[in-house]
Formats: sequence, structure tokens, C-alpha cells
Amino acid sequence: MSQPSLSELPDLPSISPVSSRLDNEITHAIDTKTKPPGSLGRVEQLAAQIARVQQTLTPVMDSCSLTIFAADHGIAKAGVSAFPQEVSRQMVLNFLAGGAAANVFAGTQGIEVQVVDAGLAGEPLAHGQLISRNIAPGTASFLDGPAMTEDQLASCLQHGAELGASAPGDAVAFGEMGIANTSAAAMLAHKLSGEPVQRFVGRGTGVDDNGLERKIKILNAASARTPDTLNPAQVMAEYGGFEINMMAGAMLGAAAGGRVVLVDGTIATAAAMAAIRLNPQARDYLVFSHASGDAGHDAMIAALNVRPLLDLDLRLGEGTGALLAWPLLKCAAAMLCDMASFDSAGISGKA
Amino acid sequence: MSQPSLSELPDLPSISPVSSRLDNEITHAIDTKTKPPGSLGRVEQLAAQIARVQQTLTPVMDSCSLTIFAADHGIAKAGVSAFPQEVSRQMVLNFLAGGAAANVFAGTQGIEVQVVDAGLAGEPLAHGQLISRNIAPGTASFLDGPAMTEDQLASCLQHGAELGASAPGDAVAFGEMGIANTSAAAMLAHKLSGEPVQRFVGRGTGVDDNGLERKIKILNAASARTPDTLNPAQVMAEYGGFEINMMAGAMLGAAAGGRVVLVDGTIATAAAMAAIRLNPQARDYLVFSHASGDAGHDAMIAALNVRPLLDLDLRLGEGTGALLAWPLLKCAAAMLCDMASFDSAGISGKA
Repeated sequence: MSQPSLSELPDLPSISPVSSRLDNEITHAIDTKTKPPGSLGRVEQLAAQIARVQQTLTPVMDSCSLTIFAADHGIAKAGVSAFPQEVSRQMVLNFLAGGAAANVFAGTQGIEVQVVDAGLAGEPLAHGQLISRNIAPGTASFLDGPAMTEDQLASCLQHGAELGASAPGDAVAFGEMGIANTSAAAMLAHKLSGEPVQRFVGRGTGVDDNGLERKIKILNAASARTPDTLNPAQVMAEYGGFEINMMAGAMLGAAAGGRVVLVDGTIATAAAMAAIRLNPQARDYLVFSHASGDAGHDAMIAALNVRPLLDLDLRLGEGTGALLAWPLLKCAAAMLCDMASFDSAGISGKA
Repeated sequence: MSQPSLSELPDLPSISPVSSRLDNEITHAIDTKTKPPGSLGRVEQLAAQIARVQQTLTPVMDSCSLTIFAADHGIAKAGVSAFPQEVSRQMVLNFLAGGAAANVFAGTQGIEVQVVDAGLAGEPLAHGQLISRNIAPGTASFLDGPAMTEDQLASCLQHGAELGASAPGDAVAFGEMGIANTSAAAMLAHKLSGEPVQRFVGRGTGVDDNGLERKIKILNAASARTPDTLNPAQVMAEYGGFEINMMAGAMLGAAAGGRVVLVDGTIATAAAMAAIRLNPQARDYLVFSHASGDAGHDAMIAALNVRPLLDLDLRLGEGTGALLAWPLLKCAAAMLCDMASFDSAGISGKA
């Protein structure tokens, strides 16, 4: 396969740089609320980010949606996961039946869930609620060659951008399902950052010590197959997954629409790394929701130099961490809109 | 003043020890949900705690309330706070008008807020929505003598227990307002734990370096006034605040009613330390909601050997951190009630 270059990709969504025009006013509004300055800590920073994205002192953060991208991975056959590949498909049925953790966390918060078949293996799944964007029945194994073709990557990005633009909500969260996708995520982070692959390898859904050693060995072999000079699109085609690349496109599409994007755990963070490399303007729209217990995720967070909101040892994916962070966004926006100021409440300032 | 002993206090609420009868079933229920075991991390531990408190595999966590206890402190006159004392009263009016951070965080989540005057200085506040339990117009300065009498402590605990028992909700959160109350909280933590007072002293609402040094000096002088052998009730009378001691009583009352208690930041954690010393059975009912940015709070958390759920650099109080943790309780309980199991969803186990 010829290696895709950025110029050969379809037009990526155009993302407006977040303007600094209101920064002083936003800071002033937050600092004059009836509380000691800074005393709401990271909620204040979050409120400022939301206000900047929406370019208003009274941001709206009433609704959120979750879109789950599911796909299979050729590398699963190399034995990098604790679960068999058919679990991807079974879990998609579980999402559609409302029985997964993501459904439950979304349901208690009134968050709509959309499920996208980005490339599950096997016969096409037919279900009224399933959004079918099946690129192919699973990627090729990136141990032997590119995971996908140039055209397939372009399709992922295009479908993703559309889905990210059309997902409902003031904020959008993206989740994923795909047995073996922590391996693809580790490869993306490794090739995009230039840091050793083992830094980004964790236990995924739960491989043991031997499994972990085996996983690292396989990924090092896969890494040796390509030069260190790949551009972001080449990295995504060589090592990405259909769900991961489509999610990266969705992040770009949502950011292009001026919306806040809730980034979940290991897989979503790898998608975010790719999205940021494709378009650095996307970064300001992303809220990193949680630090997972996974060692690989910690390394990604460090590579991005971000501090996620939550730290709850979550390593499930599906968007569960993003869903748990959603109330913080709602409260942060409400702080700006509804809290009294010292002046309006007639309260004395510092002694 | 003669020092009150535990035996002279009114009957404290009787708290049932949390039974371990269902522990194995709870663990099994959590481990067979459609996710790798342990992959929801601390949400799983939280679900287990809630299930144990309610003694059921299908816990109910639909509603929460916040009760804010407000009072003034004689020690404020020694200059330990960045804000003047009248701010306590002004903030109570702000709570009643719905303009404080606690109101806003509660409002976006449908949480009812109750405001209790536990001992504000000045003329009695008359307001239809205010629950008046004013023990006295502020405590005496604990620099010169006990902050309150035995009878006043007993009243705090009794009113608190009643309010904790009657507060609505499947979980109850307690917040506070009281200029200078981080000083009282530090003294409680110091005398209850036996560790040096400076460990528990932070910047409160924002004293500067000189203010911090001064605060530590004052608190060391106050500490030297009494022996290190005070019992918990003596510590509470000598150094507590009306709002802190009433909150401790409320924690006992809520736990006696079999309810989960959301513990907020520095002040609430000091109240929790006192409540646990008065009745160690209370501990299992407490959920520590957040680690504040305050150095004093970190030391309290370490003394209690707990790991709070959130870490958002909050140092406001009012119950704001407890309110931000509430969605985690809802989601944790929903996980047990509504998530499919591997069997029920027909999903393959580990490879």
C-alpha cells in the first residue's frame, strides 16, 4: 500500500481557533462570584474553557449525547486481549439492549446513546437503532501490514466528521468497543509521540503478566515494520482501528461545530492525540474526562500534558468516564450563569 | 467550665453496624456485570458500600439533599480569616436567595437545599426558609477558654441528630458556612488525632503567608491551653463550632437512619472525625466526596486513611464538593440495579 499523506485525505473539517477576545471578561466573571477567588479550583478552569468555546459569559450546558463507535481488529488474532473477538459484537447488542455500563450511566443522567458499527467482523448486524458505517469486517492485522487502506481511513474520517457534527447535545461524548483496541491505541500513541511503545501498553481489559509481556513483544514487532517518520494519517492507516479513526474524525467534526468534546479513557485519548495532530485547533474543544488506572493511559496523558478531571481507576471504555464527568460540565456552566456576584448579593470582600 | 465527658452527653443516636451478611453476593453481583472485573474501579467500591449500607443488591439512590449549617466563631476576632465575620450572615442570605455555588450545583441536579442557623452572630435572622437552631450568637474565642459549654455541645448534637434523621433523600450531604471555621476544624483534627496542629492548617478561604504564620501561632497558643488527654466531647466543646458540632450530630443521625452521608471538604471532614470518634459505627455510612486543595484537608484525609472520590482543588465548602460527587453515587447504584450480567446478555467470558 502506498502511504497516505495528509494532502490525499478528504477535506478535514475546518475548526475555528478559540478566540481570546473574552478571556479577561470570563476571568472577571468567575472571580467576582460569591466565593474566594479560585476556591472552586478545576471547576473554574472548566467553566472558563466552556465559556471560551461558546464565546459567551453565559454558556449553555444542558444536554449531552454519547456516540459509541464499535469495530474489530485484525491484531486480536495475535492474542493481545483477554477476551475473544466475538465479544465486540455481543457488546454492541448489549449497548442496543441498554444493558452496558455506558447505557446505565447515560440513562441515569438523561443522556442519549447512539451506537455506530464502524467495522465489526462477521455478517452485517441489522438493528433499527444501530447506525451502520461498517468500513470493513475488521481491520487487517497491523503485525503483517497496514491495518487499513488510504480509502478506508478517508471513509472513517468522513463518516466520523459527519457523526460528530450531527450528534445532539451542548457537549458530545464518544465511546468505543473493540476487542484488542488498546493495542491499536498504544501503537497510535507510540508512533504519534515518538516514545517507546511499551510506555503506552497496559493490561487492557485484564491480561496477566505473561499476556502483557507477549503484548509488548507483538507491538514492538509491529512497530519495527514501519519507519519512525510516518505522518499522522499514515500512522492512523497503518495502526489505527475503524472505531478509533472514526472517533478522531468525530472529534474534529464536533469541534468544527463549536462544541465541547468529552474525551474518555485510553482509546479515546489515542483518538484525541490523532485528532490534535490532524488539526491542532481541535485541542481547545477537548475536555479530558478521567485518568484511567491503565499505565498506557497515564503515558498518553503525560504526552498530551493534560490533567483529566476524574481519577477513578476506570478502565472500561465505552465512554463511561466521559459520562461520569458530564455533571461537572453542567455545574461549571451553571456557576457562570446562575451564581450571584459579590456586588449583586451585597457581600463584603476580603478584610 | 467543667469538661464534659461522653457520659454527660444526651443519648447519641444508635447506629447499626453495617452487616457483612451480603458481602459475597454484592461482590458476585458486581463481578458478573458485563465488564471486565474491576474495570469500573472506584465506582465498583462505591456501589459495594451503598449496597452494604442499604443491605440490598439493588440499592436505591434517586434523591439527595443538602443541609448547610452556618455559625460564627469567636476566634474570628483574632484575625485568622481573610474575610470579615459579617460574611457568614451575608452568605446565609445568599444561600436563602439561591445565589451561592452550593445552590447552583444543587439546582442543576434537582437537589433540595436546607439552611440552618446553628449560631450566627448578631440579631436573629428571620426568614421563612431558614431553619433556626441558633445555639448562641457565635462561639466564645477558644484562644481564651472553651468555645462552648457542655449544654451547648449537647444541644448541637441533639439538633444535629434530628436534622440528620429528617433530611430528605437516599443520600444526605452536609455543608457549612462560618468565617474562621477552618481554624476550629484544624483544632478538632489536631486534638482528636494527636498530631501537630500545623499539619491541619491551610490557607482557608485565602490568607497569605503572613496570615498563615499568624494563624498557626494563634492555634498553637490555643492548643497549649488544654491537656492532650481530652475526650472527643471535650475537644468538641473546647474547640468546635456550633455548625461543625451540629453537623457531626447530623452525620450520626443520618447514619442511624441507615443513610449514606456525603462528606464535603475540610470542615465537614473535621466533623466526620468527631462523629467517628463519638460512634465508630458511623464510618461505614460516610462517603468522602473530595480531596480539597487545602493542606489541612490532606492531613485529615491521611489521618482517617481514606481516599476521597474527587480531586478538583475545591476549597469553598458549603457542601459543593459533596454535590459534585452525588452523580457518582447515582451511577454506582444504577450499575447494580440496571446493568446486564454476562449470563443475562449472553456474552462470552474471558478467553
